[in-house]
Order: sequence, then structure tokens, then C-alpha cells
Amino acid sequence: MPGAGKSSIGRRLAAKLGLPFLDADTEIEAAAGLPITEIFARYGEAHFRDGERRVISRLLAGPPIVLATGGGAFADARTRAAIRRSNAVSVWLKCRIPVLLRRVAGREHRPMFLNADPAEVLERLMVARHPLYAEADLVIPCSDESPEVTTRRVQDAVAGWQPPARLPVALAERSYEVVVGEGLLARAGALLAPVLPARRVAIVTDATVAPLHLPVLREGLAEAGFTIATEITVPPGEASKGFGQLQSVLEQLLAAGTDRRTAVLALGGGVVGDLAGFAAAVALRGLPFVQLPTTLLAQVDSSVGGKTGVNLPLGKNLVGAFHQPRIVLADTGSLATLPVRELRAGYAEVAKHGLLSGEALWRWCEAEGAALVAGNPAALAHAVLESCRLKAAVVAADEREESPEGGRALLNLGHTFGHALEAECGYGGALLHGEAVAIGLGLAAALSARLGHCSQELPGRVMSHLAACGLPARLPDLSRRFSAAALLARMRKDKKVRDGALRFVLLRGPGEAFTAGEVPPALVETLLRDEGCES
Amino acid sequence: MPGAGKSSIGRRLAAKLGLPFLDADTEIEAAAGLPITEIFARYGEAHFRDGERRVISRLLAGPPIVLATGGGAFADARTRAAIRRSNAVSVWLKCRIPVLLRRVAGREHRPMFLNADPAEVLERLMVARHPLYAEADLVIPCSDESPEVTTRRVQDAVAGWQPPARLPVALAERSYEVVVGEGLLARAGALLAPVLPARRVAIVTDATVAPLHLPVLREGLAEAGFTIATEITVPPGEASKGFGQLQSVLEQLLAAGTDRRTAVLALGGGVVGDLAGFAAAVALRGLPFVQLPTTLLAQVDSSVGGKTGVNLPLGKNLVGAFHQPRIVLADTGSLATLPVRELRAGYAEVAKHGLLSGEALWRWCEAEGAALVAGNPAALAHAVLESCRLKAAVVAADEREESPEGGRALLNLGHTFGHALEAECGYGGALLHGEAVAIGLGLAAALSARLGHCSQELPGRVMSHLAACGLPARLPDLSRRFSAAALLARMRKDKKVRDGALRFVLLRGPGEAFTAGEVPPALVETLLRDEGCES
Repeated sequence: MPGAGKSSIGRRLAAKLGLPFLDADTEIEAAAGLPITEIFARYGEAHFRDGERRVISRLLAGPPIVLATGGGAFADARTRAAIRRSNAVSVWLKCRIPVLLRRVAGREHRPMFLNADPAEVLERLMVARHPLYAEADLVIPCSDESPEVTTRRVQDAVAGWQPPARLPVALAERSYEVVVGEGLLARAGALLAPVLPARRVAIVTDATVAPLHLPVLREGLAEAGFTIATEITVPPGEASKGFGQLQSVLEQLLAAGTDRRTAVLALGGGVVGDLAGFAAAVALRGLPFVQLPTTLLAQVDSSVGGKTGVNLPLGKNLVGAFHQPRIVLADTGSLATLPVRELRAGYAEVAKHGLLSGEALWRWCEAEGAALVAGNPAALAHAVLESCRLKAAVVAADEREESPEGGRALLNLGHTFGHALEAECGYGGALLHGEAVAIGLGLAAALSARLGHCSQELPGRVMSHLAACGLPARLPDLSRRFSAAALLARMRKDKKVRDGALRFVLLRGPGEAFTAGEVPPALVETLLRDEGCES
Repeated sequence: MPGAGKSSIGRRLAAKLGLPFLDADTEIEAAAGLPITEIFARYGEAHFRDGERRVISRLLAGPPIVLATGGGAFADARTRAAIRRSNAVSVWLKCRIPVLLRRVAGREHRPMFLNADPAEVLERLMVARHPLYAEADLVIPCSDESPEVTTRRVQDAVAGWQPPARLPVALAERSYEVVVGEGLLARAGALLAPVLPARRVAIVTDATVAPLHLPVLREGLAEAGFTIATEITVPPGEASKGFGQLQSVLEQLLAAGTDRRTAVLALGGGVVGDLAGFAAAVALRGLPFVQLPTTLLAQVDSSVGGKTGVNLPLGKNLVGAFHQPRIVLADTGSLATLPVRELRAGYAEVAKHGLLSGEALWRWCEAEGAALVAGNPAALAHAVLESCRLKAAVVAADEREESPEGGRALLNLGHTFGHALEAECGYGGALLHGEAVAIGLGLAAALSARLGHCSQELPGRVMSHLAACGLPARLPDLSRRFSAAALLARMRKDKKVRDGALRFVLLRGPGEAFTAGEVPPALVETLLRDEGCES
């Protein structure tokens, strides 16, 4: 904004950093050989903005500098995009109007203040531009302190600036990014604005997550001028992932006047993501969708890949759609509020990714898994990033799970057993999805070993690692007994069943998974009985 | 089949038609310089079939001939596809086994009968091949009549053979055909087999349509060896297009053991097509889908384009998906059973297509519309074909209705008014969709004239044509009165509303429609009042 201190702070910052300081407006005038007022008058604003964008892009492509831009530059969507692409760190010096008013006194001859009340001009600019300036990487609130103090605060912020990791998910029709880092919900508006058609959203969350994270999200959205058409809160738990809740969410979405440019934001775990994503897929035949996963399970698995859906009494995820998000913001800070049982359950999918990825990630799991389930932030961030990296690569190669061998189906390692165990337990929370997957991973390794596909040591290695992370690793670790026949009957109803044959993902070793369609049911039954099932 | 009379009938037919007769097996032996038994023995069947396909394709690419193929040729999927592509007319001489048995007596030296019971061999062949032979263009049942009689019947059938019209709908990911003609349901299996992943379907229909058309469809499917996993019958009428019925259809589909290779067939009008199509879109995240429209409205409009969905209490079609069918079979014969009020209502969409297409189709409507609503089969067939041609072109250019101007949105000509009228009447059958569209077309023309976009004569021309076809053409033709304010309020809730502004499709003349986003509500209100609405 005029008077925010772009030149004053920029010059001081450049001196401290030992970098050249440049002013974009001065450079533009030099390039054009004309004063800016003259460029505006002769060629109009659109022409000026194009030239401004070219000059700024050229300067940012060169050696490091501190660059002050005119106030209109960052308000131009294409110039903002060019600055983002350049990997520059953008800083917004955010001042309240009374502060600015004092500083612009004496600039009444500037074109923007001619024949106008400066307070009104600033007020108008603020309403139009603050939501756009909010997209800057760093927002530095400035008060009436000395320029030196502000400069030091800017310098500290720039030094401490760690851009969130961005993983591209490359799909045929449209690509999107999974953004991983701390504090992303607080910057949600700035991160979402470039990828959504309008600054208007509907939020779907659950009653556990809402009090923990909704206030921060609301502020993060408001900062970038987003309006929230409606906030829909569903009860926590798998029971919300049903047809009744789907209808209720759709009715609330549409009653709120949602149109095709309103994005649906899923704030929560896998249930909220699947339910909200499916609602977004079918409301008005498809609304833009954003995943804001707040659980480890959702961050490492369900939020990436575009699978959405609800359960029927007949089985889980029997109804749904492939509906890819526009972006996924995995705020690793939100994991700090997660109950330890849920953190552990989410870790089962990380371990699965380790087994699918190869020795490197699997050994990392064995070394760091215990620290992760104890809440170590660095381990959590690494696990989320590497899980999303693996999943993004698999999904990009086989978006709609149509690959006859391998592809997305490999992500079901441990899940044929896991789904059967979950179904037997009834989704009431007695056995969490991740816990079922943990046991399923051990059983998949054991089945692989019995079939001679992997070493006889692998099952033990898998089971003892999961046990070390506090997960149930074998059937006897659970408080109830299962019938082998009942589990087999459940497996036969798996979505992946083709022409009636049981399908498993098996392992030759870490990083060497494959789908097998010809596993004899008798062998599976024997394994289940040997692992403690009733016959 | 062996003994069906391929050579005997083929030779006689060729003589009558004055064409050369060729036998594919003889040509293959000549090309290879080896007897067929020898090719089989030396190189195996796969190699033989490849050569056979090449020889048959070469012969069919030349001047007209009568060609007899070996019994295994048409049983090979790729050879069948090559024969289809060649535009040859394929004829299956269909004999019962006792007839064949008598004829193959004395062929015991043939390799297929060596050391085997001929009856068992034929039985086995029949089970494997009849479903494939059923894909022939013509099926001629043959009994113990003389070859001359059979030949005459084949000749008559070939002379009378009119292939159904096939309109391609070209989409980015996948193209499909709209097939228009008489008797398509009776040949459904033959027409569907080439475009579906498996010969297994689930049928969704309604209680009115089922007794009329389901028996024929069942036979048509059985002929080509299809199994029907389940037949789901919903009550007729708009009330079935809701969330409750959707859930019920999904549960029935999945309880029947539907897998991802099972296609969902919608047999009926727009309600069945929209409901079944949406169920297919979301069951197991997407099943193959086929439209078998039996009403004029469905054949000329709703079955083409991939829009599927259900209603919410808040409004029509608020929930749904774009889910393109694998094929559409518009059996114009099924229109003979349609009540006249439904035929007329369907005609409103034909008239809309006339106005969108241009003077040629619009003048055809003015000349033939009355004959069509009186049930003239030629007029019906032409209307279905031309409507599908127009719609296919529009949909191919703008599959997901994302074009900012024109595109699919133009298909909503008359629908902004029409939807508001339908909503006011409550979907109970008091006002059919097509009747609402008829009045909407008149109002859209009147609005276009008031805004100076088209001649002052066009509205009168539109209204008097629709009235001549027995449709309500103006608001006073309806038995109830409407409030202008209530209709405007309904229009503001239209799915196409963007940022709160009313959008209409307007006309400069037939073939010159455009979308207008800036129509002043006061002008619309005045028009509605002048047309008899209460203020």
C-alpha cells in the first residue's frame, strides 16, 4: 500500500543482506524511457501491467536482489503468478490505515491522491488489495515502529522462511499439488486463491475437528477475502460416511446457494474427506474440491488420489466417484492434536508405503516409526511427504485403477485382509481402519512367504516393527476371535474381486509388490487358522 | 455351424445376385499353399486366425461378392470387428442341432468329428458360438426346407436389410455411437457385445415400460449369450428420480454381485435414464452404462450427452454426474406404445432442436410436426436422427458444459422459463417437462423479440406451430395461473445462475441462439404479466 515502506524497508533490508536494491517502477521507466504516468496516459493500464510483469520477471530471473514493486503489481493476478513461479520470497508490509495516512501526508501531488480524500483512497485500495496481498509468502504486520525495527523483523522472517513442500500429482486432464508443511491452515486463503475459480467456499468438517481447526481456517480464508457460503459439521466417525449424511450434506450445500464456482473444502480425516469429496463430485454435477486433511491417515493416504465415496450397509466405499481435489493442504501442525491411537493407526499406512516403496523408506520406518508415533514433528513431516510422493506417483500412472496388473491396486497391500477384519468388527471404532491394515500387512507378508514369494524372515520383520509402534500386529493381539470362513466370505465381496477369484497384493520384498489373482482359498484359510482364527 | 449350408446357400445366393461366390477356407489354402489342417498343425490356431482375418478383410475390401467363412472365423472377436468395419452384410444361417446332425452325416472324417460323438461336438460348438454368431446383421432361422427356399429367404432379408443409422458422439476420452432404428431392442445383445467389457448386465426400468419392452430386451440379450445379473423396476414418474430410489437401486445393483465389468442398462424414459445413469456413475465408482430410451423425450434429448442425476426437494437435477453411455440404442419401434400426450411433450424438444439447428430443421418441424405427433413412423425416425445429430455435435464441442458462451448451455433454450413452470407445478404430472418447455420456447422467443434480437413475427410462428402440434403454447393454455414474482424467484435458483444474474438462451432467428446474462428482471416480469401471470 502507499506509505507501507516498500522503498524505505527494502533499501535497509538490501543493505543488511548485502544485495542490490531495485525499485520496479524505476526500472520500468528506464526500460520504457517514459514516466509511468505517461505510459498510463498514452497506452492504458493493461499495457502498463504487461510491461511491468515483463520487467519484474526479468529482474527476478537474474542474481539475488531485493525488489520493491508498485502497489498495483502484486494486485495483478498474472504478475502474482509470475512472482510465484520465479521462486522469489514475497513480503507484504501490512499496515493499518491510520499509519499509512500519516506517512502519505505530503504526497497529495501523486496522481492517485489528486482531488481526493487520502483516507477514502486508502480505504478503497485496502478493500480491493488486501485480499490479494494476502497471497504473499510472508505477511509482516507493521505499526508505527522505526524502519530499523521493521527491517529486522522482515529480515528474521525471510531468514526463517521455509516454503511448504509441494508435490505435483500429474494427471491426464489436470494436475494438482499436495502441499505439506506447518501452519498451512492459517494461510489457506493465500494458498487456495491461485487454484480456485472464485474466493467462495463451503466447508465440511466434523464435530471433533471443528473446534480444533475451524477457527484458524476461517481466519486464513478471511485474510485472502474468501467468503464461506456454509459450514457443515457432521458427527465424527465412520457412521457419517453413509447415504443419509450424504443427502444432508448435499441439501445443506445447495440450500446455501452454492454455485459451480464455489469450492467444497473437506477439513478433517478420511471420513470427512470421502464424504465431502463425493458430495462435491455430484453436487451440480461437480464442484471444485479441496482436501484439508487433519489426521495422519488422511494426510498420508485418503486425501491424495481422488477416491471419494460413502458406504452402503452391504459394504464400505461401494458408492463413490473419482473426483480429484484442486489442491491438498496437509498441515502437519494439525497432527499435534491427534489422539495417540489415531496417530498409530495412521502410521500403518506409512508402513505400507514403506513396504511398497523399497528398502530405503522401509528402513526409515524401522528406524523412525517409534519416534513418529510418539509425535516427533520431523518424523511426521517426513512420513507425510514421502507417503504423498509414493502415492502421487502411483496415482499419476493409474488414475482410475484400470491397470490390469500393479498400478493403484498395489496400494491395497494388506487391505484385502484389513477390509474383511473391519467388516467383521462393524466399523464402530472397535477396530480402526489403520489397525486392521496393520494386521493385514502382517498377513499379506505371511501369505507371500507361504507361497514362496518372499523370504521367510519378512513376515516377522513386518509384525515386530508394527508391534514396536504400538499397533496390533497379529490377530491374537485383538481382544476378539474371528472365524476363518467368515473372513473368507468377506474377502469374496471385495470390490477388487474379478469373476469370483480372490485377489491379493503380495510381496517379493520391500519395493516389490504385485497383484495375485490365483491364490487358493484353502491356503488362505489355513493361514488364518494358523494365526488363531476359528475354523 | 457345420452343416448349416454356408456353401450350398451361398453359392445359390451368389447365382441369383449375379455375384461371384468365394469360400474363405479355399482362399486361405490358396494363399498359404497349404491345407488348413496343415496350417493348424504347423503354426497353431492363433496364427491361422490372423491369416484368416487378413484374407477375409482383403476379399471384403474388393468388389461385391458372396463369401462363406469357416465357422470359427465369425467366432473370433477381431475377425467379427473386421467384418463389421468392412460394411459387409453378415448372415447367420441358424439351424437347430437335429437338422445339422442329419446334414453332417458322412463328414465323420473331418478333424472336428474324429473320434467324437457328432451330437456332442455340435452341442459344444453351439454353446460357445451361438452367442457370437448372434452378432451377425441378419439371423435366418433354417429348418429342413429346400435350399432354394432358404436361399430366397436370405435374398429377401438381404434386400430388405436397412442398417440402423449410427451417429458418433466424439468425446475427448472416448467416443460412442447413438444407434437409431426399428427393432434394436430385439437385437440388443448383438449391438451391445462389441462395446461392453463382458456379456453381463443389470437392467433398470420402470413398471410401465417393463411389461411393454422388457421381454423383447431379455430375448435380444439372451441371443448373444448375455446374463442379466438383476432387473430393477422402479415406479414410473418423476418421483422415482430422488435420493431414496437412488439408494434402493444402488443396493439392488450391488446385492446382485455387480462387478466393474457389469454394464447398467437403462430401459425407459428420461427418469429411468437419469436415475440408472447416475447409479452407474457412482456404483463401485463407475460401471459401464447403456441407454435404451423408449420415449420420444429420451430418444431426442435426455439419453444423449451423458447428463445423469436425481432431484433434491430443493430443485431438479441438483445432484448428478457426467457419465457417458457406451452406446445409445434408440429403438424407434418402441415409440408406437407411447401415450399421445407423452409423444407431444417429447416433440417440444424436437421443436427446440429445430430452432437451434436452423431454418432447414425448423421448417421441417413446421411441415411434419403434426404428422409426427400423430405417430408417423418416418417422421419420428427423422426427428430422432436429426435431434441426436444436433445434440451429438453440441455435446462433442462442450462435454461438461464449461463453455462460457454458447456450447451446451444453448440446449437450455426455453428451459429457464420451463424449469420455473415445472417447479411451480410440482412435478406431479400436472405439467410434463416437454409441455413446460413448449411454453418456455414461446416465452424465450417473445423475450428475444422484446429485446430486439429477432423479428417480431418469430414468437407468433413458434407459438402457433406448437399449438398446431397439440402442445400448450402460451401460459393461458394451462388450467392454472402463475405469479410472475414466484416464477422469477424460481429462475433465480436455476443451476445456470452465475453470481446472481439471470441467464437466458435467446434467439436472433432459427439457428441463431445465444446466451444472455444481463436480462433485466423487470423486463422478464413485464413479459410474464403480459402473458397472463398475476403480479
